Amino acid sequence: MGTTNSNAIQSAISSVAGNLAADDPLRLRIRDAAAAVRDTTPLAQSFTNFVTINFVANAQLAAGGTAAMSFLASDIVDIAAICGATYVNVGTLLPFYRHALREITAAFAETGHRWVLDPVAAGLGADRTAILTDMRATPPTIVRGNASEIITLAAMWELPVDDDNDLDDSRDSRPNGVESADDVESALGAAKALARFLASKTPDGEAAVAVSGAVDLVTDGETVYRLPGGSAMMTKITGAGCSLGGVTATYLCVADPLAAALGASLLYNRASERAAATSDGPGTFQQHFLDELWKVSPAAIASGDIVAE
Amino acid sequence: MGTTNSNAIQSAISSVAGNLAADDPLRLRIRDAAAAVRDTTPLAQSFTNFVTINFVANAQLAAGGTAAMSFLASDIVDIAAICGATYVNVGTLLPFYRHALREITAAFAETGHRWVLDPVAAGLGADRTAILTDMRATPPTIVRGNASEIITLAAMWELPVDDDNDLDDSRDSRPNGVESADDVESALGAAKALARFLASKTPDGEAAVAVSGAVDLVTDGETVYRLPGGSAMMTKITGAGCSLGGVTATYLCVADPLAAALGASLLYNRASERAAATSDGPGTFQQHFLDELWKVSPAAIASGDIVAE
Amino acid sequence: MGTTNSNAIQSAISSVAGNLAADDPLRLRIRDAAAAVRDTTPLAQSFTNFVTINFVANAQLAAGGTAAMSFLASDIVDIAAICGATYVNVGTLLPFYRHALREITAAFAETGHRWVLDPVAAGLGADRTAILTDMRATPPTIVRGNASEIITLAAMWELPVDDDNDLDDSRDSRPNGVESADDVESALGAAKALARFLASKTPDGEAAVAVSGAVDLVTDGETVYRLPGGSAMMTKITGAGCSLGGVTATYLCVADPLAAALGASLLYNRASERAAATSDGPGTFQQHFLDELWKVSPAAIASGDIVAE
Repeated sequence: MGTTNSNAIQSAISSVAGNLAADDPLRLRIRDAAAAVRDTTPLAQSFTNFVTINFVANAQLAAGGTAAMSFLASDIVDIAAICGATYVNVGTLLPFYRHALREITAAFAETGHRWVLDPVAAGLGADRTAILTDMRATPPTIVRGNASEIITLAAMWELPVDDDNDLDDSRDSRPNGVESADDVESALGAAKALARFLASKTPDGEAAVAVSGAVDLVTDGETVYRLPGGSAMMTKITGAGCSLGGVTATYLCVADPLAAALGASLLYNRASERAAATSDGPGTFQQHFLDELWKVSPAAIASGDIVAE
Repeated sequence: MGTTNSNAIQSAISSVAGNLAADDPLRLRIRDAAAAVRDTTPLAQSFTNFVTINFVANAQLAAGGTAAMSFLASDIVDIAAICGATYVNVGTLLPFYRHALREITAAFAETGHRWVLDPVAAGLGADRTAILTDMRATPPTIVRGNASEIITLAAMWELPVDDDNDLDDSRDSRPNGVESADDVESALGAAKALARFLASKTPDGEAAVAVSGAVDLVTDGETVYRLPGGSAMMTKITGAGCSLGGVTATYLCVADPLAAALGASLLYNRASERAAATSDGPGTFQQHFLDELWKVSPAAIASGDIVAE
Repeated sequence: MGTTNSNAIQSAISSVAGNLAADDPLRLRIRDAAAAVRDTTPLAQSFTNFVTINFVANAQLAAGGTAAMSFLASDIVDIAAICGATYVNVGTLLPFYRHALREITAAFAETGHRWVLDPVAAGLGADRTAILTDMRATPPTIVRGNASEIITLAAMWELPVDDDNDLDDSRDSRPNGVESADDVESALGAAKALARFLASKTPDGEAAVAVSGAVDLVTDGETVYRLPGGSAMMTKITGAGCSLGGVTATYLCVADPLAAALGASLLYNRASERAAATSDGPGTFQQHFLDELWKVSPAAIASGDIVAE
């Protein structure tokens, strides 16, 4: 079956320079993850923002999983016992969240429950800074964000960032609202540092960081993978990033962190390209995107462009 | 006009065994309810979860009613004075809800205001259990839920369930997130017990329970009605059940509880079948479903399959 | 370029009696505002209700801007320093909002930050009345609402309303839920009084009030502009008014209050007419409306019917 999978993927591999081989074991892990989501409809719960909570749930369902959302520690801890992974997004905060998220992430750390953090608008507002700072002690399995958020979180956690591409001291670390003020490559060093830190804290030493942008960047702290592709229309609907975080949690229910982060991002690139081709604007794009999430095959996901470095 | 209505319904009745006759008075009550919603655009307010609140409102509008949403007791009590029914859904709770819902349901009980309860994820989390347990003292007019929720609520309220189909003691009562872990038929005894209890508490002795699933089950505590039909795509969008609860409240503004529960469920079955036929996945399905809610005629609603027992 | 703009607008001006001339400077201000939104993708943040928060964000993105949403004073004040305008909507309140909104609007008043108020359901509930009454001391730059909300807010703030069309004392001031119980013309005096009051409080003496309805009414307190057009389907989706308020804030980032209120309302009329022509019900209408928001040109916006009085 490995041969068959590999052939199915092979036929779709494009000619991007440095593209991972069709029979690379990582592609098979991604294909198996995508197939397992379709086969087992895993439950990933979310503690997420009010703006895009509906889109996160619908994206998880369309990708093949199921969804449950809550803001109470007692719910989240109860559901964590029956679900494979949790998605936490700090987009729209309420006053009681700091206490709730402390309790929740402490419970996750104690049980080894795997979760995805989306540090939306990291750096903005005293509450968000306090919440994200707290999480250094009980860190997630995967962090997914835009470049500014990844850079800000690594700085907030005082992680040693040694990459040449890194920012000089003159950078204004304040994000531009919820949009990234930095490009993906400028977050390379922060992403690697963050992934190494997360991996040092997980029970099995596995973790990943995904930086979303024109070319997505995913790393486990050692290898860096770049995913070209996707549609710019994703920046014209709200929740593209949030729902990718949610679907990453869906994939994390059935796969290792690196395969989960890569698989979800590849699915998003493929589905958004297809949706853009049939849409007439951001309204129909959003619906066609959900349709395509539903339709893209595991083989098509696993055959997307992946440039390893 | 009764004859005309009956004829219009007659022509559409399918040949399901045990199907209610075209001139059954219940079908005419359902048709009148659907027509009254279209003619009077009744206001049903909601206290509902953050995931699907937008879809609930849009479904109520598309079904012919109007919507208002709030989480404050002072708002809800004010609006109850000018609306026909209220929808309460305990999906995503905030810490202050227990106190607010106590005040709200006490006010409803005092004034005889009619309301629909959606016991989402009953059994999960200490807050939800406390809130649902409280409601035994000030119960709703209609409960709509999936099989697991109906079974759990009847157990929580310690209602005598005497049906043969009922679950043995070995059942794990913990629900599988927000999805049902039980099939509709296993909730038959609980649904009847719950409906009888609700009917014993309403001013006019009328109440209903609706169990949603592949074949919906609706009962007033005496007769059990089964509604085959609908589309499995309803399980691939979030809010199918929540919005049905909201539309049931819209129908309850103009009809008795049984006709309201049946009418809303029949509308959903018909609209989802039609939407599935023209959709390309869960994204376009959701929009086509709202279109079809808007377009299905009262006669088409009243002529859906209803198997009485 | 003024000539070119004027010609582009000229060719589209319809023959409604009293329609503003194609070369009226106000049309050029509106065209420039629409073009500036497309060119600069301005960030307008929102403190808005849970029902339509997703639609508000998507409408702002489709209109050409970007969005950020929060409910915490610390976030809102931080973001106000980096965005052009804020949208505040009092639709679904939580208990802590009164304190938060006091802090937020005081900060806006101190810095001269411009904002749009949407007094949803004004008159309903003790909390909402307290919040809206508070805002008299720190008023917005623009108020956008339906007729009942505008009348209620002017009364709540005890503004002198001297218009002949005004309501007699026998009017029941209680709104009909979130729908208007009054027609647009009955709010004429209240809208003018409100606009004059707002203009007396802003740093530059500029303000506007927009009353949405079958024929929208916009005023700066001196001149009254009526905007016929738009589609009745806007009343069959939730969030038509809320999202117009959000897009008005987007326009306020780059334009004076009157041009912002007129431009956003004209965009809405044109986009809703186009969407209605291609839709099959409220579901597809909502998506086509977002598509059209994205596609309507600045010249098409500026050439909409505007009847000045």
